[in-house]
Amino acid sequence: MNSSSEQTQVIGFDTALARMIDHTLLKPDATKAQIEQLCSEARQFGFAAVCVNPCYVDLCAELLRASSVKVCTVIGLPLGAASSETKAFEAERAIQDGAQEVDMVINVGMLKSGNDAYVERDIRAVVTVAKRFGVTTKVIIETSLLAEDEKISACLLAKNAGADFVKTSTGLGKGGATVEDVALMRKVVGPSMGVKASGGIRTYDDALTLVASGANRLGTSASVQIVAGWKGPTSSTI
Amino acid sequence: MNSSSEQTQVIGFDTALARMIDHTLLKPDATKAQIEQLCSEARQFGFAAVCVNPCYVDLCAELLRASSVKVCTVIGLPLGAASSETKAFEAERAIQDGAQEVDMVINVGMLKSGNDAYVERDIRAVVTVAKRFGVTTKVIIETSLLAEDEKISACLLAKNAGADFVKTSTGLGKGGATVEDVALMRKVVGPSMGVKASGGIRTYDDALTLVASGANRLGTSASVQIVAGWKGPTSSTI
Repeated sequence: MNSSSEQTQVIGFDTALARMIDHTLLKPDATKAQIEQLCSEARQFGFAAVCVNPCYVDLCAELLRASSVKVCTVIGLPLGAASSETKAFEAERAIQDGAQEVDMVINVGMLKSGNDAYVERDIRAVVTVAKRFGVTTKVIIETSLLAEDEKISACLLAKNAGADFVKTSTGLGKGGATVEDVALMRKVVGPSMGVKASGGIRTYDDALTLVASGANRLGTSASVQIVAGWKGPTSSTI
Repeated sequence: MNSSSEQTQVIGFDTALARMIDHTLLKPDATKAQIEQLCSEARQFGFAAVCVNPCYVDLCAELLRASSVKVCTVIGLPLGAASSETKAFEAERAIQDGAQEVDMVINVGMLKSGNDAYVERDIRAVVTVAKRFGVTTKVIIETSLLAEDEKISACLLAKNAGADFVKTSTGLGKGGATVEDVALMRKVVGPSMGVKASGGIRTYDDALTLVASGANRLGTSASVQIVAGWKGPTSSTI
């Protein structure tokens, strides 16, 4: 653990929860220095991964070499409206740069147009690349744009396409993770897939509630504040 | 001109202004039917182009065949934080699908990190592909995220990289086109490059003011309402 003076000083934190968090910084104006700090915090707290834009994957892979923290990146974020070929290319390039997990956005417009076959092929294009390299794929369904039947369809399409996780939100859309959406997604995909809650997760209680609803991964930029919200062993329910 | 009953009925509009407008629909949940309507309106009013996400380029190219309306798409939108290789791939793929103009987003984070060489290389990666096919490149600098010196740098880097236009905004960020930004961008790039104003342009007066400030292309989703705002030949200042 890194205890340099630049690090946030946190005495005691929820290490089990930390291992479920993708420490995230996707703002378009994120600087190299901010990404370096993100990686340093991820090492310090033992987060599952850092989640960064593709242009910073090589930097993070270098900084997180020989650590338990994985490098996660995003594909087609946030619109999901790139061509399937571009999403597949973006995934392969990111994996070559050092990404160990890829979070892709579905094509919401095609889902709304009733073109489920397109949506599944689009997911499969990325999953196929990722599987070739043993890389985890999370499928962002952007719940805030979807009606309930569309959320269910999106989860089933992701499962059919062989993805590892479904994920609620890009964090850049109108809304984030809700307890209801996470519970629905867990119910639809069953125990064999992961469910990642993301978007608007700011507190320790938010995090625990979403985990209790069925999430086994959390994406947030408030990770340090969240794990530091632990009040000691008895307050944790996970 | 298409005068079918589904079309908006507009009696008299500013045809000169229409020819400067990229009729735009970039929402992630845009359906096929909405894109079809966009293309129909673009034909009816003689807009410069439709501006759509890459997944709809082939559809628009088919619908706008044998018309004066070009197909414009977006590269790396809205974050601009994809790898340069992915941006180049996305551009080439879109051109193969029928795109005649590509609007790419700069890497704002790298600009903020002082890595101007990266930003210029990133622009050049797309420009090189586009020039090979005789396709116009517009470089979105996302003014709302930049300080004045960064806006100037971004414009100069786009000019150095051989782009055809600089463009104010993705339309999905915090702010859109302002008179001050357009005037600054025109001053920096001079008369030999285009300046596209985009984001938040809703009325005929907005449009005329931005043109008077130096814009020679406008990106908006309110195009029909804008050109219909014409009050007759004497009200036009362009």
